Amino acid sequence: MDPFVTVNCFCLMPNENMHSLMLEVGGRARKASRELARARSAAKNQALAVLAQKIRQQHEAIAAANALDLQKAREHGYPESFIDRLTVSAKVLETMAAGCEQIAQLPDPVGEVCGMHVQPSGIKVGRMRVPLGVLGIIYESRPNVTVDAAALAIKSGNAAILRGGSEAFETNKILGSLVREALFESGLPQDAVQTAPVADRDFVGEMIRARGLIDVIIPRGGKNLIARLKSESLIEMIHHLDGICHTYVDAAADLDMALSVVDNAKTQRYSPCNATETLLVHEAVLEAFLPRIGAVFKEKNVEMRCDEKSLAVLNAAGIAALKADQKDWDTEYNAPIISIAVVESLDEAIDFIAEHGSNHTDAIITNDLTAAQRFLREVDSGSVMVNCSTRLADGFEYGLGAEIGISTGKLHARGPVGLEGLTSLKYIVLGHGEGRR
Amino acid sequence: MDPFVTVNCFCLMPNENMHSLMLEVGGRARKASRELARARSAAKNQALAVLAQKIRQQHEAIAAANALDLQKAREHGYPESFIDRLTVSAKVLETMAAGCEQIAQLPDPVGEVCGMHVQPSGIKVGRMRVPLGVLGIIYESRPNVTVDAAALAIKSGNAAILRGGSEAFETNKILGSLVREALFESGLPQDAVQTAPVADRDFVGEMIRARGLIDVIIPRGGKNLIARLKSESLIEMIHHLDGICHTYVDAAADLDMALSVVDNAKTQRYSPCNATETLLVHEAVLEAFLPRIGAVFKEKNVEMRCDEKSLAVLNAAGIAALKADQKDWDTEYNAPIISIAVVESLDEAIDFIAEHGSNHTDAIITNDLTAAQRFLREVDSGSVMVNCSTRLADGFEYGLGAEIGISTGKLHARGPVGLEGLTSLKYIVLGHGEGRR
Repeated sequence: MDPFVTVNCFCLMPNENMHSLMLEVGGRARKASRELARARSAAKNQALAVLAQKIRQQHEAIAAANALDLQKAREHGYPESFIDRLTVSAKVLETMAAGCEQIAQLPDPVGEVCGMHVQPSGIKVGRMRVPLGVLGIIYESRPNVTVDAAALAIKSGNAAILRGGSEAFETNKILGSLVREALFESGLPQDAVQTAPVADRDFVGEMIRARGLIDVIIPRGGKNLIARLKSESLIEMIHHLDGICHTYVDAAADLDMALSVVDNAKTQRYSPCNATETLLVHEAVLEAFLPRIGAVFKEKNVEMRCDEKSLAVLNAAGIAALKADQKDWDTEYNAPIISIAVVESLDEAIDFIAEHGSNHTDAIITNDLTAAQRFLREVDSGSVMVNCSTRLADGFEYGLGAEIGISTGKLHARGPVGLEGLTSLKYIVLGHGEGRR
Repeated sequence: MDPFVTVNCFCLMPNENMHSLMLEVGGRARKASRELARARSAAKNQALAVLAQKIRQQHEAIAAANALDLQKAREHGYPESFIDRLTVSAKVLETMAAGCEQIAQLPDPVGEVCGMHVQPSGIKVGRMRVPLGVLGIIYESRPNVTVDAAALAIKSGNAAILRGGSEAFETNKILGSLVREALFESGLPQDAVQTAPVADRDFVGEMIRARGLIDVIIPRGGKNLIARLKSESLIEMIHHLDGICHTYVDAAADLDMALSVVDNAKTQRYSPCNATETLLVHEAVLEAFLPRIGAVFKEKNVEMRCDEKSLAVLNAAGIAALKADQKDWDTEYNAPIISIAVVESLDEAIDFIAEHGSNHTDAIITNDLTAAQRFLREVDSGSVMVNCSTRLADGFEYGLGAEIGISTGKLHARGPVGLEGLTSLKYIVLGHGEGRR
């Protein structure tokens, strides 16, 4: 997308009703955010435990609401993959409940004080970790995100306005009401988590313009949704757009390790954003390595789209592959397809990633310490890895305990975003009557 | 300003020339940013030392360029305060040079690694501090900002595109060329710091739309400039809009301390954004405190705009004051004017600040530990203070060594922003061949 063109997709025409609704919802969220910000950890954890319990107890009511959404979706002829994501199966339901319990067990990030020191004037200066305020979470028709996002918001002391896909409206409504009950029964403000009160798409347009009411927009979902929101949002966003991840097999790579890591990075699952889309191979190990990984990809029916050099080596080894187009280097396949390019040096690999990467996750396979250090320092991605699979770029794998998403932005939080990414540090200053001289 | 209305002030009509110019300048900056990000501290510090030297040596050439700008500004009939800010006096020149030397002495924030730990899978996960990339700094006709911003960018490993007010074009041009020479002589890429190549205002419009070329926009200047940029920028910003700072004198305040702190917070200088604009007084100390500070303000010709209760107390003490309008509570005076309101409780003070504050800096004067702790935790500002003057909210006073500005945003950096605020943390992961299971 041309970075200089703003595409207006949401809410071109002012909609007065939607605007007043946003002011109402946002005003309640802002008020609740102040109460939740000072809530005790015990109360927040209790709300999460109660929510887990309610999700399990109310499985029939949830299934009934979900059935309404599913029926409509089938009538609209949505594809099976869509229906799949919309379905709250017994397994999805248990995962949601268990997720709440896990988040309850994480340490509370709020209130941590760090860096206190005394300045020459006599004041003590440090920083305190506080919630961001009100999160605006916009996502597609996956009802599990409603519970995940609510739980992360509650634990991190943030109020949240949740706007899921309109096709999941009934399911989200009942899940939202369970969240409100859990908050109420734990002595917390019910308005701390609100689901969008209408299925109307214009509400999204209002959310991304609600400056002063929403502090950050967090979109989860397809690239088109996120690209549109990014073009129009007047509010800062935590998001990722593309996941064009590279694995670079260096001249000094352990080739057995490279084989298993590249295999995992591409084929363990094809759809996630942290799957490797482009393999870079140093020409010194091209002949020794490429036919081996090519055989693995052939076996697993992974289509290979190659530059000239790598195509020649694969063909010579009797492995069929395609010639890559220029646009392959900038494509996130999320599919059993990999692009392959040969580089003559570490510098060329780093340049290639700078040109074609998406600041998401990139890995080097090497035993050369200098190469590893340069790659770690110079590759400008949220996660930079040595000798492991890009598929490990994940909040759980990093020990964050939970994840609201992965950020490819360069400010605030980079890479997987957990509870800490939903907070920031403000300065606190303790004096004894000091003034400015 | 209505938060839902986008005002289009810059570059309504696409300007092809300006757009290509931006692509050129931005492309050079992006390339240079990668070189600067991996530059050694010694080279960056040398560039700053050389720059200081050149500023002192070239004082005549700088004065000549400045004279051209000053002549034009006088012809345009700009007010004396404007001419003042535009003038590079011998003192301003020495301050610029000394600033470069001070920044050279600060620790280099880039490359710091923190939080390394081993995960169950075997991978080691931590974070590395890295530059943001390319800074777009937009400011008014104060040539000293050109050197300040260049020095902070170089030290933090960021490339910068500097767009100062067009009235300072000639002065900025020569200062920019000295920066380039200093970079070149220190073995660093000259394009790491570029001043806007044209005085055309449309260039600002291009900068704030240059996604992928500029990573963060940092505006410095008047509220109107910043509000306009905020409405239109497609790029994240580090900025502050309003500085409506409060000092709250609690029921448990030491009134002698309150007197000197409130005096300092309001009168030490009137124009800075961290000067207190609203005084809140607990009614328990109203009679004992308000006439004392009122006498100080009267003596210093500070106009008092009061709610009913405080007006009555001042009048009873024979001190003239005005009745406040509703809009006084939301006004940043930057002048010898203070608004005064009485509150019945700490809660009311915190609520008042939540309603009328600007997330900048707020202080409580109290000896009550619980009140101090609640204020610190619950007031949602970049700087929250106990028993000292809001005027201390400043990068130098906090020990940051330098400051690019103060942020009232809630993501990334809050409060005074120094070198660390021009960097962020990316994840680094060290493995031994691990893959996702």
